[in-house]
Amino acid sequence: MSRTPPSPLSTPRFAGHVSMFRVPIAPSPEGLDIALCGIPFDSGTLGRNGSRLGPRAVRDVSMQAIRPVHPLNNQSPFEDCRIADVGDAASNPLDIMQAMDQITAFFEAIHTAGAMPLAIGGDHLVSLPVLRALARVRPVGLIHFDSHTDTFEGFYGQRYNNGTTFRRAIEEGLVDPKRSIQIGIRGPRFGKEDLAFSLASGMRVITIDEFFDLGTAGVIAEIRRVATGPCYVSFDVDGIDAVYVPGTGAPEIGGYTPRDAQVMIRSLKGLDIVGADVVEIAPALDPTDGTARVAANMAFELLEVMVDRHRRRSGPAS
Amino acid sequence: MSRTPPSPLSTPRFAGHVSMFRVPIAPSPEGLDIALCGIPFDSGTLGRNGSRLGPRAVRDVSMQAIRPVHPLNNQSPFEDCRIADVGDAASNPLDIMQAMDQITAFFEAIHTAGAMPLAIGGDHLVSLPVLRALARVRPVGLIHFDSHTDTFEGFYGQRYNNGTTFRRAIEEGLVDPKRSIQIGIRGPRFGKEDLAFSLASGMRVITIDEFFDLGTAGVIAEIRRVATGPCYVSFDVDGIDAVYVPGTGAPEIGGYTPRDAQVMIRSLKGLDIVGADVVEIAPALDPTDGTARVAANMAFELLEVMVDRHRRRSGPAS
Amino acid sequence: MSRTPPSPLSTPRFAGHVSMFRVPIAPSPEGLDIALCGIPFDSGTLGRNGSRLGPRAVRDVSMQAIRPVHPLNNQSPFEDCRIADVGDAASNPLDIMQAMDQITAFFEAIHTAGAMPLAIGGDHLVSLPVLRALARVRPVGLIHFDSHTDTFEGFYGQRYNNGTTFRRAIEEGLVDPKRSIQIGIRGPRFGKEDLAFSLASGMRVITIDEFFDLGTAGVIAEIRRVATGPCYVSFDVDGIDAVYVPGTGAPEIGGYTPRDAQVMIRSLKGLDIVGADVVEIAPALDPTDGTARVAANMAFELLEVMVDRHRRRSGPAS
Amino acid sequence: MSRTPPSPLSTPRFAGHVSMFRVPIAPSPEGLDIALCGIPFDSGTLGRNGSRLGPRAVRDVSMQAIRPVHPLNNQSPFEDCRIADVGDAASNPLDIMQAMDQITAFFEAIHTAGAMPLAIGGDHLVSLPVLRALARVRPVGLIHFDSHTDTFEGFYGQRYNNGTTFRRAIEEGLVDPKRSIQIGIRGPRFGKEDLAFSLASGMRVITIDEFFDLGTAGVIAEIRRVATGPCYVSFDVDGIDAVYVPGTGAPEIGGYTPRDAQVMIRSLKGLDIVGADVVEIAPALDPTDGTARVAANMAFELLEVMVDRHRRRSGPAS
Amino acid sequence: MSRTPPSPLSTPRFAGHVSMFRVPIAPSPEGLDIALCGIPFDSGTLGRNGSRLGPRAVRDVSMQAIRPVHPLNNQSPFEDCRIADVGDAASNPLDIMQAMDQITAFFEAIHTAGAMPLAIGGDHLVSLPVLRALARVRPVGLIHFDSHTDTFEGFYGQRYNNGTTFRRAIEEGLVDPKRSIQIGIRGPRFGKEDLAFSLASGMRVITIDEFFDLGTAGVIAEIRRVATGPCYVSFDVDGIDAVYVPGTGAPEIGGYTPRDAQVMIRSLKGLDIVGADVVEIAPALDPTDGTARVAANMAFELLEVMVDRHRRRSGPAS
Amino acid sequence: MSRTPPSPLSTPRFAGHVSMFRVPIAPSPEGLDIALCGIPFDSGTLGRNGSRLGPRAVRDVSMQAIRPVHPLNNQSPFEDCRIADVGDAASNPLDIMQAMDQITAFFEAIHTAGAMPLAIGGDHLVSLPVLRALARVRPVGLIHFDSHTDTFEGFYGQRYNNGTTFRRAIEEGLVDPKRSIQIGIRGPRFGKEDLAFSLASGMRVITIDEFFDLGTAGVIAEIRRVATGPCYVSFDVDGIDAVYVPGTGAPEIGGYTPRDAQVMIRSLKGLDIVGADVVEIAPALDPTDGTARVAANMAFELLEVMVDRHRRRSGPAS
Repeated sequence: MSRTPPSPLSTPRFAGHVSMFRVPIAPSPEGLDIALCGIPFDSGTLGRNGSRLGPRAVRDVSMQAIRPVHPLNNQSPFEDCRIADVGDAASNPLDIMQAMDQITAFFEAIHTAGAMPLAIGGDHLVSLPVLRALARVRPVGLIHFDSHTDTFEGFYGQRYNNGTTFRRAIEEGLVDPKRSIQIGIRGPRFGKEDLAFSLASGMRVITIDEFFDLGTAGVIAEIRRVATGPCYVSFDVDGIDAVYVPGTGAPEIGGYTPRDAQVMIRSLKGLDIVGADVVEIAPALDPTDGTARVAANMAFELLEVMVDRHRRRSGPAS
Repeated sequence: MSRTPPSPLSTPRFAGHVSMFRVPIAPSPEGLDIALCGIPFDSGTLGRNGSRLGPRAVRDVSMQAIRPVHPLNNQSPFEDCRIADVGDAASNPLDIMQAMDQITAFFEAIHTAGAMPLAIGGDHLVSLPVLRALARVRPVGLIHFDSHTDTFEGFYGQRYNNGTTFRRAIEEGLVDPKRSIQIGIRGPRFGKEDLAFSLASGMRVITIDEFFDLGTAGVIAEIRRVATGPCYVSFDVDGIDAVYVPGTGAPEIGGYTPRDAQVMIRSLKGLDIVGADVVEIAPALDPTDGTARVAANMAFELLEVMVDRHRRRSGPAS
Repeated sequence: MSRTPPSPLSTPRFAGHVSMFRVPIAPSPEGLDIALCGIPFDSGTLGRNGSRLGPRAVRDVSMQAIRPVHPLNNQSPFEDCRIADVGDAASNPLDIMQAMDQITAFFEAIHTAGAMPLAIGGDHLVSLPVLRALARVRPVGLIHFDSHTDTFEGFYGQRYNNGTTFRRAIEEGLVDPKRSIQIGIRGPRFGKEDLAFSLASGMRVITIDEFFDLGTAGVIAEIRRVATGPCYVSFDVDGIDAVYVPGTGAPEIGGYTPRDAQVMIRSLKGLDIVGADVVEIAPALDPTDGTARVAANMAFELLEVMVDRHRRRSGPAS
Repeated sequence: MSRTPPSPLSTPRFAGHVSMFRVPIAPSPEGLDIALCGIPFDSGTLGRNGSRLGPRAVRDVSMQAIRPVHPLNNQSPFEDCRIADVGDAASNPLDIMQAMDQITAFFEAIHTAGAMPLAIGGDHLVSLPVLRALARVRPVGLIHFDSHTDTFEGFYGQRYNNGTTFRRAIEEGLVDPKRSIQIGIRGPRFGKEDLAFSLASGMRVITIDEFFDLGTAGVIAEIRRVATGPCYVSFDVDGIDAVYVPGTGAPEIGGYTPRDAQVMIRSLKGLDIVGADVVEIAPALDPTDGTARVAANMAFELLEVMVDRHRRRSGPAS
Repeated sequence: MSRTPPSPLSTPRFAGHVSMFRVPIAPSPEGLDIALCGIPFDSGTLGRNGSRLGPRAVRDVSMQAIRPVHPLNNQSPFEDCRIADVGDAASNPLDIMQAMDQITAFFEAIHTAGAMPLAIGGDHLVSLPVLRALARVRPVGLIHFDSHTDTFEGFYGQRYNNGTTFRRAIEEGLVDPKRSIQIGIRGPRFGKEDLAFSLASGMRVITIDEFFDLGTAGVIAEIRRVATGPCYVSFDVDGIDAVYVPGTGAPEIGGYTPRDAQVMIRSLKGLDIVGADVVEIAPALDPTDGTARVAANMAFELLEVMVDRHRRRSGPAS
Repeated sequence: MSRTPPSPLSTPRFAGHVSMFRVPIAPSPEGLDIALCGIPFDSGTLGRNGSRLGPRAVRDVSMQAIRPVHPLNNQSPFEDCRIADVGDAASNPLDIMQAMDQITAFFEAIHTAGAMPLAIGGDHLVSLPVLRALARVRPVGLIHFDSHTDTFEGFYGQRYNNGTTFRRAIEEGLVDPKRSIQIGIRGPRFGKEDLAFSLASGMRVITIDEFFDLGTAGVIAEIRRVATGPCYVSFDVDGIDAVYVPGTGAPEIGGYTPRDAQVMIRSLKGLDIVGADVVEIAPALDPTDGTARVAANMAFELLEVMVDRHRRRSGPAS
């Protein structure tokens, strides 16, 4: 079986079974360098839900939106790495705690197989069980694109939801806040303490106001300064301005553009990115497929960063 | 404060704060005959979710779609009964068991105040905690409009979700299956035992094929034969043909029409209806407000049936 | 210039300038047998507005939806009659009274030219100024498809709006209620007197309940019994069930189908139909073009009835 | 690998890779009884195009809409037959003649493998190359659900498009018109000769008016009378009323309902159905997934008919 | 009754009755510092209408989009001021002159009660009757965000509509043009004199070209230079680029972003803002709730400016 | 017949027959300076199709979006030039080669009449037959706004489609690559040779990265440096960021804004622009009319550039 997507020069992109970026579907992560997958779980959502259908929507759009060669280096990530779509993590929608365990098990299998995961959510709670799989031995730095900090103590008396992910991750020793950065925080706040935990933990918080003061170049400098060592990238699409991502639970106006995000993600080349997710795509809220298109592109940029790391470490895939 | 909606002859229906049918908003059910309310809970949803926004959507559409006088008897339910919108039941989206307790408490308050509830869901699991409030002392008969039986043992190892509601209700002694009827069951089945529990329990199950054989008149005769004593009406909008209700989690083609449903609900006059719900409205899945419009109309028909019961028992409200 | 639409066998229907049914655009009604036109006026709307864009939407959809030969008699109305699209009636959106005068003047020009008008609204108020042009000398009978009677005394202190049209028309002696019929009346009522004027005036009112009792055959018999002499047909799309016409200001569930309407309109053959309108298409409320498609088809059926009258009276057009 | 879809009782239907009805994806039709597939080709479309994305949309919706057990006989077609999704037929969108050859080759492979095809279009031209694969040796009878006859000589000087399919099929000796029936023909006509070829050829044409006169029972009797011997079923979704299928190139009002279609397809049990297609789903034209939902259900009904034939001939699959 | 919105940390934002920013609903402006309200009037609209449903849509979205603490100063406007939602101004849709009088009366009641109004339109004509209530004694300066000047003499012979508002306001002595500024004027012009009145009156007109030349900092300097003394802010959403606000009657491409608008509104702190409106939201034209989301955020920024003025003048609310 | 659009000050823009910019409809290009027209052809589309309906959609939106006076010079192009809408080019959707010949013939008639064409597509293949009409005698320079180069050798074995247009045009000697520039190229690539032909031919290729490096001023300098002599402007709307143009076959994120495009087109004044097109508008993919609005505005900017050329050469039209 071919390891690369069919050439769009010979096969129309509206034909064929759907997989992420048109890569082969694999039954397991064995033998892969990078495992593409979905986490169709949204039972941790505080606001408008529906991101359980995010993986399916992003895969579908990626068939049309993503072609095989990256424009920056004119190379195909699919030639240089063993990449497949390993499907969706089991994640019981009726039991948050069990779902998290299932997700962790799914990503432990990827991790154990020696593959790096690139996951499509699901709501933002899913990053926590992924981090449990990847960072249990050694905490990772976090590069977190979002309009919200997701470091609350709890909501409605519950500690596990899409507003508490990174507080739990820090408390569990999965994320090293000193090597972590949050980019794009904005919008009216739930309360006066919204940023308190992030700041107290030592995370670098770049509000949207600081983002516009620094410009992408300045922000990139901050990311590269902070995010040393193995890092995980968590990309909540609502970090981007609401107009580009209406299909998300809590869109916020006044954010950065997809172009800004592309530039920032591309700048991660050379960093030690060990996994990534793109989350909070709720397709029913977007009558075009714009949100999924943005998400697919962000995932493609993250893939190139991860492939680049692989190239540097391993040389071209055999 | 006026007890009736403002006349649409003098106040445009696109103006004013939103409440169900434009009735007054009340802080508690005290002194009411009928309490209109919402249950914005959808964490028990097996398929496509989003019905947490159902109550808000149905209230909004009811402002335009429902005028104060019922066409069948040319009477205004709002003149003959003390009716208000008492708001939404608390229902923790992150904890199914707690949410059910919260919902039960909300409806116990209505019940204790001597009011009958007419609720807008939410997913179909919400009927269970409502029944716990209304039928703990004495089981009710159930008049259940739906394309699914909702009498499964469980899904994904969980016993409380929108596919198990009425099995639990029967097991808990809240519903008397011998006085219960399910109308419109259809669609491909989850498994070969889908109807087994309903049939074994003694419920009358009218599949859509039997529905079309009997006609609404025949179905009405069956309802009136079975549904003796105090009864609860649970109206899942997906009992109606999918084209009328795209905004529901699991629409099924080949169902009855809203007209059929109107005729069937109107035929409940004279029965001892003690409460009702209209559930599974997921507005993000319907780009027109058609699903909410159907739901608002079904609720209005149910209201008239409940007001009629009140008229018969109490005479006109003072 | 050809008098008939270009053949869809040789010219794609997605090409070419837009006109009603693809007929030629004419600068005036002179020399026409039937004048197709629009009335882009909706300032008389009580509820949701937007029908000012109805004529444009119906013309656009008619390009795709309507081909030149009628299926019932396998004849082309365009061969047998001189038909053109004479454009839109001027109708000041900021001055209801002036707009009505402008509309009347536009239709007087059509009437004086010896052409019969077939108009697309616009809200239902527009029928009044049309009738002033057609029926000032002699009242017409009215065949009125609608879910509402539109015979109210007034709203918000105003006598001219889309809820009062036919009361005004009767008061002004334009419509003879004894030769008039209203078909499909339903929905919750504004007040207890909604039907009072219609009934007292002598109009035949067929509520939706009676419609389903009689069936289309019974309703047709009633129409033919009542509608003697010169008659005007006013077709409010909301007489049809809401699911078919979400793009209207006040859709009502539980109505008849477009098929029912086709059958009823076709039955008007042989009656003395002197003009017709199809009104209340608000395209922004319908994300498909379904409402406009239904309206275009209703207009085509009405056209065939009017052409048939012309055939009977004049023989084939020269 | 399991031959049946994962149980929806244990795996949420919003999870997992997409295939038709959630059946396994197979690289070839070898060893199958029934091959599900898509034909993403719409370059033969006369009107509004976009059905090249039909197969993808129907597969996607089938994941949610279709569960494994058929309600009529309470059996699972997937247990009784070897069924897989073999993907999409190659079909060059830029070369109609080559595309037809490619499609024929794809279905010849299915036919040669001893499997029966059930295909999702694509525009209606695709039935012609499918029939070339299935009926070259011996003509089939045709059971054709549609609002159009698709038996024109040509459009714009071209003989191969979605309005000429069945004229070509008859001319090529693929379809025996004496054993063929067309059901639901309606709408304004392109010209006065629209039905001429169908009638002259000996096909049984049931216009929508005759459909409503006969009722489904009468139509079924006609189908069973005409469709003797091996038959192919071609289901154009626009045979159904436009409101159910806005997502098709040329929707026509006034048609039958999906329920009618279900009843008619189910009545084909016992006939010798050797293949089937469901065509003309253009998802971009339908903002809900209603059209694809109807199509998926029609395909499921056709599958059950084909499985029933297999059961009768072969006994249960081993 | 609590004066502040329920905490989103304990009550989901998808629950509860709808009010602007989730503040309490008040029957009158008595005792308030700031009165939130709607003006559901669009009968002065020249182009595409539908903004009569703007207040309802903005309230609805504000429930989800606006949380209680402002990000700039980390303070809650709701703690520092007495704020409530006082409902919608009566405004007869069938009589422009009466509607203006009704609106003026509604805002005079607010003004007399000592509260500052923050209103949601409605079309832009509504600013005129609001100004009549606020500025009859002493003209205000005007800070006007828009793509159009709205200073025409008339349209279709009418002097009161959404294209003439500020010409009338200046003629009536309600607005002092020397202290007034218009920001974002652009788009093809109705005629060659479009800017003539504004410029001749002494208003500062910043076209979009000058806007991009100056940058937001330069524009802010101009606003602060011009807008001395008591000022009213009128924010037409179409000043923002069309992509962010498709749900408005006359969207114009090439405008500023919501971020630009946030920055400009925040810069008004320290000015003497006595009232504000956000107008021209026509929700039916926007299939996401993006336009209403932008409007709700603009209103929240304006609220904070008004609360800041109150803080400076009064100290914290008691 | 008036040569200019009706004044929007006296005639509402929602009234009247549809033509581009509301200009008169003309049966032929004789006597015109500029001929507005459509090319409803999309059979050369590689990806998502539907641009056959682009001309109709852009005309419709232009009625509302474009008023008669250009904001930059406060002049009306319609006063200074003889401009009319000459309708759509015949273009057989079933035969790519014939369609190209038909399109060429249509534009040769315009060219021969001495008029300059401004065309609305259609997919991007249509530029090739237009150039055959305009540049057969002498090659033109090309100013090409796009995210794709459209200079591929072929797709699926075919040489004529919307990915090969400009390679064919250069090969045929219609475009002088040395005087040509492509602006905005980006997105994942089909293969590693995507830019090879453009670069080797001598075209100036400005990728989106270079675009953001240079800024619009730098890009304009490059355009003016390269585009000497008679030039043709081809504007593919997908050069603009995807969020502004969801209604196109292959939207690409990370592009320039409509404002950027306006600035760039306006800078073409003084160049020798002999014709222009705006292509790839597929309205079914955009539930608002945003894509068509952007296209209509781009066309209006191009018109002004062409009128300016005419003014310079001819003085004001007589």
